Amino acid sequence: MKSSFIVIEGLEGAGKTTARDVVVNTLREQDIKDIQFTREPGGTPLAEKLRDLIKQGIEGEPLTDKAEVLMLYAARVQLVENVIKPALARGAWVVGDRHDLSSQAYQGGGRGIDARLMTSLRDTVLGDFRPDLTLYLDLPPAIGLQRARARGELDRIEQESLAFFERTRERYLSLAAEDDRIITIDASQTLEQVTADIRRALIGWISRQRQQDSRG
Amino acid sequence: MKSSFIVIEGLEGAGKTTARDVVVNTLREQDIKDIQFTREPGGTPLAEKLRDLIKQGIEGEPLTDKAEVLMLYAARVQLVENVIKPALARGAWVVGDRHDLSSQAYQGGGRGIDARLMTSLRDTVLGDFRPDLTLYLDLPPAIGLQRARARGELDRIEQESLAFFERTRERYLSLAAEDDRIITIDASQTLEQVTADIRRALIGWISRQRQQDSRG
Repeated sequence: MKSSFIVIEGLEGAGKTTARDVVVNTLREQDIKDIQFTREPGGTPLAEKLRDLIKQGIEGEPLTDKAEVLMLYAARVQLVENVIKPALARGAWVVGDRHDLSSQAYQGGGRGIDARLMTSLRDTVLGDFRPDLTLYLDLPPAIGLQRARARGELDRIEQESLAFFERTRERYLSLAAEDDRIITIDASQTLEQVTADIRRALIGWISRQRQQDSRG
Repeated sequence: MKSSFIVIEGLEGAGKTTARDVVVNTLREQDIKDIQFTREPGGTPLAEKLRDLIKQGIEGEPLTDKAEVLMLYAARVQLVENVIKPALARGAWVVGDRHDLSSQAYQGGGRGIDARLMTSLRDTVLGDFRPDLTLYLDLPPAIGLQRARARGELDRIEQESLAFFERTRERYLSLAAEDDRIITIDASQTLEQVTADIRRALIGWISRQRQQDSRG
C-alpha cells in the first residue's frame, strides 16, 4: 500500500492530540511503522518562525486577515515541499496536525476571507496536492473552547469570539460534506467512543485502499 | 492637489536612494512638505521581520519561490493597510522604495512564477490600490550588480545569476510600456542627467495633475 498523508482537523479542544495517538497506534497495528508527524502552521524552521508571528502577533501592529492567510500559505508550502513530499517519496506515512482545511475553515469561514482568494491560494500554491484522508473532529465550539481554556493561556486566534468558531465549524462541516476524503468524527462523545470511531474509520479506509490496490 | 503615492523602482544598483532624494527635494520645491518614506519589503515591525527572513533565508532550509512571494505580499498588505493608506488619508505624500512592481518583475519575471498566481495575488490582496506614479530606473543588470557589489555583501536575492536579473529587467520594461503611470528613466546616464530626468518627469506629472484638478 502506498504511503499516505493523513490529517487530523478540528477546532481547539476537539482532541487532536489524542486522535493522533489513536491514528499512530492503529497504523502500527496495520504494520505501518515509518510515520512522520507534522503540525501546521509550522514543521520547518521558517514555518515555525511564521507560526510564532501568526500565533503571537506583533506588539502594537494589527495583523491583517490577508497577511495572516498569506503567512499560513508560506509556512504550508515550505512544509509540503521540504518535509511532506520528501517523506511520502521515501515511503513514510505522514500524520499531520492540521493542513489546508484549517485555513479554509478558520480564514475562509471564521474570518470570512474572499472565497476567490482562498481557492486561488490553495490551487496555485499547492497544485493538486491534497491529504489522502482527513479526520475531522467535530465539536460544538463552546465545549472545545472550555477545554482549550482549561489547558492554559490562549493565543491570538484562540481568543476569537464564539461566533468566529461557529462560522469556522460551519465551514468545516460543509467542506467535509462535499469531500469523500474527509471523515467527520463526533468528538462530543466519550473518549472511548471517539477512539473507537477513529479506529473504525481508519481501519475501514485502509482496508478499502488495500482492496483498490489489489484490484489495480 | 491630493496626496499621492510615488514609487521608485529598479534593479539593485540602479540608484534608488539617490532618486529618492531627488524626488523629495523636487516635492518640497513644489510646496509639498508632509512626506512619508516607505521601503519594501518592510516598513512595519512585522514586515521588517518578514524582510529579514526573505533577504537572509533560513540556514539549511531552501526558501521556495512560492513562500517568498507569499511573504512579500504579507509584508506588503501590512504596509499598505497600516502605513500607506493612513498616511495618504491624513494628507501626507508617500515616497516608496519599491512596491508591487518589484514582485511582478523579480518574482514574476526573474523567478518565472505563474502569471495567474501573480495577478491573482496582486488583485485579491491589494484590490485596486496602485501607486499614483512609479519612476522606474532602467539599467543593464551587469552595471547595477557591479555597483551593488561595490557597496558590500550581497543578500540572498542579490546573489542571483545575471540571467535572473535580465529576466527581471525585461519584465520591468514590458510592464512599464503598458502602464502610463510608470515612467522609465534611463539610469545608465550620468548622475546629473538622471537627476535632471527625474526632476523633469516629476514636475511634468505634478503639473498635469494640477491641471486635471483645476479642470475637475
